[in-house]
Amino acid sequence: MRCENHIMDQILNAYKPMWSLKHAISLMGWDFETYMPKKGTEERGVADSQLHLLYKDLLLNKDFVRLVESSKTLKSLTDQEKGIVRVLDREITKQSKIPKELIEAESMERIRGNMAWRVAREKSDFLMYAPHLEKMVEIKKQIAEKTGYERHPYDALLDFFEEDLTVDELDKVFGALTPRLQKILKKLVDSGSPFLNESKLVKSKYEIKTVDELNHDILNLMEYDVNRFRMDVSTHPFTETMGLNDVRITTRYEGTDFKKSISSTVHEAGHALYDLQCDQSLSVTPLQGGSSLALHESQSRFWENIVGRSMPFINRTID
Amino acid sequence: MRCENHIMDQILNAYKPMWSLKHAISLMGWDFETYMPKKGTEERGVADSQLHLLYKDLLLNKDFVRLVESSKTLKSLTDQEKGIVRVLDREITKQSKIPKELIEAESMERIRGNMAWRVAREKSDFLMYAPHLEKMVEIKKQIAEKTGYERHPYDALLDFFEEDLTVDELDKVFGALTPRLQKILKKLVDSGSPFLNESKLVKSKYEIKTVDELNHDILNLMEYDVNRFRMDVSTHPFTETMGLNDVRITTRYEGTDFKKSISSTVHEAGHALYDLQCDQSLSVTPLQGGSSLALHESQSRFWENIVGRSMPFINRTID
Repeated sequence: MRCENHIMDQILNAYKPMWSLKHAISLMGWDFETYMPKKGTEERGVADSQLHLLYKDLLLNKDFVRLVESSKTLKSLTDQEKGIVRVLDREITKQSKIPKELIEAESMERIRGNMAWRVAREKSDFLMYAPHLEKMVEIKKQIAEKTGYERHPYDALLDFFEEDLTVDELDKVFGALTPRLQKILKKLVDSGSPFLNESKLVKSKYEIKTVDELNHDILNLMEYDVNRFRMDVSTHPFTETMGLNDVRITTRYEGTDFKKSISSTVHEAGHALYDLQCDQSLSVTPLQGGSSLALHESQSRFWENIVGRSMPFINRTID
Repeated sequence: MRCENHIMDQILNAYKPMWSLKHAISLMGWDFETYMPKKGTEERGVADSQLHLLYKDLLLNKDFVRLVESSKTLKSLTDQEKGIVRVLDREITKQSKIPKELIEAESMERIRGNMAWRVAREKSDFLMYAPHLEKMVEIKKQIAEKTGYERHPYDALLDFFEEDLTVDELDKVFGALTPRLQKILKKLVDSGSPFLNESKLVKSKYEIKTVDELNHDILNLMEYDVNRFRMDVSTHPFTETMGLNDVRITTRYEGTDFKKSISSTVHEAGHALYDLQCDQSLSVTPLQGGSSLALHESQSRFWENIVGRSMPFINRTID
């Protein structure tokens, strides 16, 4: 992106190394979950935490902060430019509150804990993972205290992925849903639906290769550009955006109930589609990709539930 | 690695972010050749060049240079510590001579040119690649001029991967080989060997899956630890070391003459074995991995030619 405004151009130029660190961090995250040999965990933890610290250093560099400050008073900025200033200003405020030690600790624990979780999940042994979960909750609490909040500690953490949303507001939203969901549940119970008892459902086994081909057929149906997109396998499915021309999803094959794998593929492909449709002028800027997690989930769930579970889609997939 | 010497400990601590950048650059290199969607090329070019520039900034940071300078006068350093000082001092001298613009240009051109080469290779169309090669040669010439040399410009470039070796010395080594190689060639020609005419050799087709399994059997025979090592597929085979516990090789399957794929697998596995056997105390230090390209090739070729082409190895592989 090129800006007519000189200050904005300087900001975007200075942002390039920060974007690059985020790109590398994303790739390391994707690789960690897909292909990294297990014993690489500790070295990856060092690299991940150090790159996060470098990002913090660049973002809080006095010259860069001054640039962003001065851009806040600029007149006649485009909407995109205003967005860049807002996002960077927010990021600077947040990062300035979190001490290096916490950033390093969170990063190391995320990597170590994730690997422990994968091993624990394979063995269905929660106790293996419990101490890592405990440590992470402790770290997150400390981050919340440092970042600050008005009413609920989780407000501070929620704000990282959903700007300005609070626990109180969320309680209202979900609170309104509860009585209606209870009605649906009652109706199901009264009707004696088999969906209430997972163990009674028929879970047919499948060949991984067959469902993998089906998943790729579905991606083709959704018109994915293989030159900007790919799908791999991981313990828990996710979408990772390296850049606007490199978005990756994962799926998983549990071996029974192929609908799970398909749903998860369509869900993640929904996330990917959202990022892939982002305006190319936002490449290598702080506005790359979706604007919030809720909007992201709205896209992925729309594809998973409204499109993916519709009769026309199912008929089309079977064809 | 922990050093008793306070200055050495400071150096290794300050080196952590530099090691981490190199780790990320290695991973981006591996990913570029194996799994990256093609249209990610330009974004990857930005990330790669920016991370190289960040590395340069950290290495040439005044405080760090002063630390390394002061370490040069230290008495009673261990061999490892002396090695760290020597390698960093060399690296600082080199990096201080190459301007940022050249580092950025080399990085962008390496990424763009490599992708162009892959497409050109698929289509057997050298002209597609020619302008990239031309540009890279130009960039390398400029780097040689900036870095400096006594007799031959290539001395400057050779020194990057083979410390202190010069073109004159190389000419002596290879010059001594030429008459002997000519003797062998004459013997072959006189005997009417079919190996002199590639088109007459029988090139049997193979199923990729079968040779892939054979390659993995060979890796098992070489006792590779799958928790620290992996093998993937790329256009040209290579070894990339992310860290002492994460070393990766690639191989290729051309579909005819399976010996090529096997040789290349054993060759790259030889590189990997060299790095994987490096002392763990050198993890996250400038001494991680092999000490030079020539030593690396001595290991890979020993495995490929002396072990891999020996009758006992072939018999063992067939079993």
